[in-house]
Parts: sequence; C-alpha cells; structure tokens
Amino acid sequence: MNLEVLTIGTELLLGLTVDTNAAELGRALAAAGAEVTRRTTVADRPEAIRAVVAEALERTGFVITTGGLGPTRDDMTKTVVADLLGKRLVLDERLLAGLEARFKKLGRPMPPLNRTQAEVPEGATVLPNPRGTAPGLWVEDARGRVIVLLPGVPREMRGLLVEEVLPRLVARQGNDRRVVLSRTLRTTGIAESALAERVGAIDPEILPLTLAYLPSVDGVDLRVTAWGLESRDAEARLAAVVERLRAAAGDHGYGEDGADLAAVVLDALRSGRHRLGVAESCTGGMVAERVTNIPGASDRFIGGVVAYADVVKTAALKVPIETLEAHGAVSEETVRAMAEGAQRLFSADCTIAVTGIAGPGGGTPDKPVGTVWLAARVHTVTRAVKRVFPGDRDEIRRRAAQAALDLLRRLLAES
Amino acid sequence: MNLEVLTIGTELLLGLTVDTNAAELGRALAAAGAEVTRRTTVADRPEAIRAVVAEALERTGFVITTGGLGPTRDDMTKTVVADLLGKRLVLDERLLAGLEARFKKLGRPMPPLNRTQAEVPEGATVLPNPRGTAPGLWVEDARGRVIVLLPGVPREMRGLLVEEVLPRLVARQGNDRRVVLSRTLRTTGIAESALAERVGAIDPEILPLTLAYLPSVDGVDLRVTAWGLESRDAEARLAAVVERLRAAAGDHGYGEDGADLAAVVLDALRSGRHRLGVAESCTGGMVAERVTNIPGASDRFIGGVVAYADVVKTAALKVPIETLEAHGAVSEETVRAMAEGAQRLFSADCTIAVTGIAGPGGGTPDKPVGTVWLAARVHTVTRAVKRVFPGDRDEIRRRAAQAALDLLRRLLAES
Repeated sequence: MNLEVLTIGTELLLGLTVDTNAAELGRALAAAGAEVTRRTTVADRPEAIRAVVAEALERTGFVITTGGLGPTRDDMTKTVVADLLGKRLVLDERLLAGLEARFKKLGRPMPPLNRTQAEVPEGATVLPNPRGTAPGLWVEDARGRVIVLLPGVPREMRGLLVEEVLPRLVARQGNDRRVVLSRTLRTTGIAESALAERVGAIDPEILPLTLAYLPSVDGVDLRVTAWGLESRDAEARLAAVVERLRAAAGDHGYGEDGADLAAVVLDALRSGRHRLGVAESCTGGMVAERVTNIPGASDRFIGGVVAYADVVKTAALKVPIETLEAHGAVSEETVRAMAEGAQRLFSADCTIAVTGIAGPGGGTPDKPVGTVWLAARVHTVTRAVKRVFPGDRDEIRRRAAQAALDLLRRLLAES
Repeated sequence: MNLEVLTIGTELLLGLTVDTNAAELGRALAAAGAEVTRRTTVADRPEAIRAVVAEALERTGFVITTGGLGPTRDDMTKTVVADLLGKRLVLDERLLAGLEARFKKLGRPMPPLNRTQAEVPEGATVLPNPRGTAPGLWVEDARGRVIVLLPGVPREMRGLLVEEVLPRLVARQGNDRRVVLSRTLRTTGIAESALAERVGAIDPEILPLTLAYLPSVDGVDLRVTAWGLESRDAEARLAAVVERLRAAAGDHGYGEDGADLAAVVLDALRSGRHRLGVAESCTGGMVAERVTNIPGASDRFIGGVVAYADVVKTAALKVPIETLEAHGAVSEETVRAMAEGAQRLFSADCTIAVTGIAGPGGGTPDKPVGTVWLAARVHTVTRAVKRVFPGDRDEIRRRAAQAALDLLRRLLAES
C-alpha cells in the first residue's frame, strides 16, 4: 500500500519549525504496512495545497495531510480539499456540540471563528480528537481515493494517527498486509568506504531488501530494509542479511538499532563485575556524560576527572611532571599515566583516558588539530592508541568519546 | 526568487532520520531573499529522484537537493541529475587530487569507491567541500535552469550553503531583494506563561512582524519574524521589538539567536579574570562538557570532578562524611561542600556544583525524581538553590546543567 504525506505550514517551509510530524508519520506508517513514497511540504496557500493534493492523489490514490485545520484564516486545508473533490462543507451538529462543551469546560465563550471547525466535507468520516478543537477527517471521493486530514499540533496528530488512522489502514490491507521493516547494525572505527568493501556488492543478492550506509560521528550504521513483504517473511529475511553484515563488520559491529555504545560498555562492565572511572582532557566530560546518561549507570560508574589544565593532570591524576615535560600532554605516556591515575583515584578496575587537541587552536605540525591519544585499562593491562580525527571541535570531541568507549569495549571483550 | 528544495534519503521518508537540513535550508534561504515554494522528500531511488527534480525544474527553474552524494551504491543523485540534463559525468582531476590528499592526510589509502566522488556532470561548477569527500555541484542546463546538489551530512551541507550557495543567490537577485528575517531573544529560569504576562499583548502593535514563544529545556526563546520586507527596514523593526522584549524579560534574558549560556558564562569569567572548576553528580559531566564545548574555554576552565559515587564526594571533594550522613547526597549542605571542595581542589576562584536525582529510580516522597540542588561560588560567596525539574532523565539533567550555569551567571553579574 503506497501513500503520500503532505505537511502544510509556512513555518515548516521557512524552517522556523522542524517538521517532526513527518518523521513520526513515516515510522508509524511503515510499521503498519503503508509505504510513504513521497513527502511534500507547502505553505498555507490554497493554490499550493490544492496542486499538491491533486498530484499526490493521481500518483497513489491515498494522501495524509497534517496542518491547516485550525480556526484561523490561514488554516485552509479542509476548504481546499472539499473544493477539490467537489464536496460541500456541512455543519456536523455533534462536532459543534462537542466544541461548545469543550469551551464551556474551560470557562470561556466559544469564539465565532471556532464554529468553522465543526464543518466537514459532505460524507466525510469524523475522527474524534480529544486533545484539541480540530477533528481529523477521512474523506473518500467517488473513485475510492482517500484523503486523511490531521491537525498539525504534534500530540494531536500522534493521538489521531495511533487511535484512528493506523487501525483503519491495517484493516484496509486485510490479510495480505505488506510491511516496511528495518533493522540497523551499528559499527564504529571503520570508514564507510572500507566497510562497503568488506560487505561487497550484495545489493542485487538481497533484493527485495535494500541496504543503506548511514555515516555519523558515532560510526557507520548499516540499515537493511524489507519493502512490502509479509511481516514474518520480512523478519526472517532481515535476520539473515543482518547476520551476514555482522560477519562482514566483524568486531566493528557493536549493536543494533538504537544501541548506544555507552550502554553496551556498561553491560560489558556488568558481566565482568567491573567498575569504571574516567579521566578526560579534550573531551571535557563527554565520556562521563555519555556513560551517566544511561539509566542505572551508578552501579558501574564511580566517577570522572576532567583534567583540562595540566595542573589537574599532575595533582588529581598524579601524572608525573617529567612525563608532561618530556612528551607533552598529548602523548602515549601521558594518556597511560592518566588511565593509571584514574584507577588509583577512583579505586576502579577499569578506566578510560582521553587527551588530545580538539581545536580550533593548539595544533602543531607534529600534532595537528584532531590528534587524540586514547587509553583503556582493565586491571593491569593498558591499551593506548593514537587517532587523528577529521572535523570541527565538536565533531573531534564526539569522535574521540566514541572511540574511547570502543577501545574499552574491545579490551573487555578480550579479557 | 522562487525555488524548490528536494531532500533525498530513504531514512528521511521512513522517519528514521529527522530532516534537519530542510529546516536549516528554509531559514537560510528566506534570510537571503529566496522563497522556498515547495519541499519534497523522496527515497534513494533513481526514478523517484528523477521525477521530482524534473517536475520542480518545470515549476520554478531552480532546485536545491541534499543527500545522495556519498561513494556508495545508494548515493545516486549526481548520476540521475546528469542523466536528466543529458550531460556526461567527467572526472575532475583537481577533485581527484584533493580526495587523494585528504586520504593521505588521514594516513589511509583511498578506497576505489571514492573515485566516483571526483566525477561531475560536464560543465558543472564544483563547490569545494573542505568538511567531507563529496563536493557540492552547481549545474545549469541549456535553458538556464539550475540544480544545486549538496551533501546530506548536516555540517557539510551547512558549510557549502553559507560559503558557496547563499552568496551566489544574493548576487543573482540584485537590489530589490525582499527577505524574511528573524531574531530570537533567549531567556531562562522563567516559565512561558510568566514571560507572556511580562511581555503583554504586543502582537497587534508589532505588525507586520510576528512573535513566537519557543519553550525548550534551555528556557523560553522569543522569536520575532519580519516577513517580506526590504532588508534594512526589516532589521530596524526587528531591533526595536527585540529591545522591548529584552526590557520585559529583564535578567532572564541571556543572549540572542544561537547564544550558548556556557559561552556567556565564559565571557563573564573572562571580564572578571576568574577561573572555573566544577563538581557534578547527577549531571555526570554535562556542565564541564558544555563549558569545554566552547572554543578557547581552556583559558578559564581548570577542570571538573564527576563525583557520581559518594566516595568521590568525600575523597576528591572532601565533603565531610557527617554531612552526607546527616543530610544526604542531595542537600544544600552537600552541594555547598562540593562547591567549596572544588574550589580547593582546582584552586579556582569560581565553582559550580550540582547534585540531584535524575531518575528514573532513586526518588523518595521527600526528594522526588527531578530534585536538584545547585550551587555557584565566587571567591567566598556561595549561592545554593533547590529546584524540582520536570521531564525524563535526559531532560532533568539538561535543565539542571542550564540552571547551574545560570546561577553562576547571575552571581557573577552581582559581583
């Protein structure tokens, strides 16, 4: 089942509001077996709305709109759709009574403008909206084509979608419902192109499933999507492809879907009954922040030191002054001493240490901006690596925090 | 000047990624005097991309696309556009040399796949992308119609937009440019409704400008927008309204537009020649992370302790065990002792301390989830406040970090 989504609002087009409804609709519809083939945004202008609805109906015969259902002058979706389908707007007495009751409950008289919200295109199904004044509307034309109108306020849209729209879509599809399902393998520490070489040209083989590479500062996600299959078949095929990708990615794969590397590390610490302390310079607290962002981190995480000034490295972490003087703050010797110092300070059997140059200043020909030394320590074993990360200050810090967590994950896996 | 925006990516359509590029493009283009008349999103499918680009070109003669310029098989925007315009893809030697140099600098051989990124439609203008491997492309057809191809990675898209695309658009429009401009006053520590009462019903008076209240975990932003005015007129009117809002918001206002409270605090520290240390429990490093996220923080920020386990509060920050036992870790006495301990540990004249219950577990009837004690200390003066923040773990932590920075900002303003 194919459909198109139309989000209406001048604020969306101007970027003054980020269109979160669009993403929410995409996820929910795909999981219910409806494929969004195109998404369009236009301003609150009747001729623009009319053109897009008409084109989308021609292409797919099914359109869901959000926005433009309020009581004000710039809310015109309903009028435009009724006009396009050649239907009159008629007053729905039950809707009007509901609106009046709603305002009575709020202790205010109903403004005359709101009366228009009780008008519906002739023959439309009213989708009750307990969260606001604008009901959803399910309108069909003589050829069986459907336009579903939803309000633009996210919580109202979401409520109507889940309670009214998705059940009807599932029912329409009957037994041969075809779903769009995705699974994502998360990898880190390997470039998109290198990963693509390992995976190879599997695209033709996995059809009708598709594979997408999604690079970010956390690494490269591999998302496999099954399009339009019966749901058990989709699940089985996805599992087979993910297994193949997992083998290709090797130890670069650290989890699936929304997996957070910090949570993966916490789980590994839990299995080994380890406790963690961290010592950070250039990441400035980001590693600790990511770990403590996970609910329940307190059973494994003892504490952290943000050793930004060198005096903190020597005083709190007991990095020898001679080490700093001989090798510099960004060096293998210093990062190892930081990992050991954190172990003593926090009485932690596992530690992570990071020191580097996040920029924009501070780089040298020998140690350019992006140079970061990372260390992970488990009991008496320290592993230290140097990386040179691309990107700006924020990106370098994020990449460094992710790489530091990954270093400990790998070391724990071998312990 | 009218144009259309096309964002390409199956993950956008499925709602797996929120389309932040679309909003960013909308804002920047409106400010440059270009009106986005329609925005469309399609999947990584050649026939879908081709259809939308062709239709948009017919309507407006100017299209900007994002996404689909990577080195992998599902990145096909360039090929489709070249084919649509009847242009061959030709290897650009300078691009190839740049790509090879980029990989050399990273110390890795360039994978053969990346070579395709040096191919451009014949006659296209290459828009250099120093932030990634995919350049932007400005392609014109024989009829003078334009397609601008930008990468989908937000920071690469943003850089190319600002440095390459906007200047060209402004130049094309000449002198009678009409713009949509916004300015935002950022406030914190005051509820939306309280702020609205202070501001009053100014909407009719400021027409044709409009005012929007935008609440978030950082506080409430007040956004004023001027629609379709000549740019100097728009700027003057915006300045007058922002001045009025600033007076109404009083000391809750801390900056404009993208202002970060951490940067505001660093500036205040700089003026007073102060240096900062932080001690955090429930925020887990977030305060230090926010401060060190600002370039140049190292001249003011000495270091931080993430005192997650109580043993770190007593050992590193010298919070007396009796204080913890008598009042608990989330108490005025503990947060004051943490602020003093951080001052000693870091030899810092200014400190921030935070201790609280971020949840989901750990709440009690006396101290429910969301209870946070905050302290700021300047020389010998400590100010401590208790707040009970709404929201989930992440939201409580973010609100606490922002409130802690704001407490120091206010104390510094009085010093």
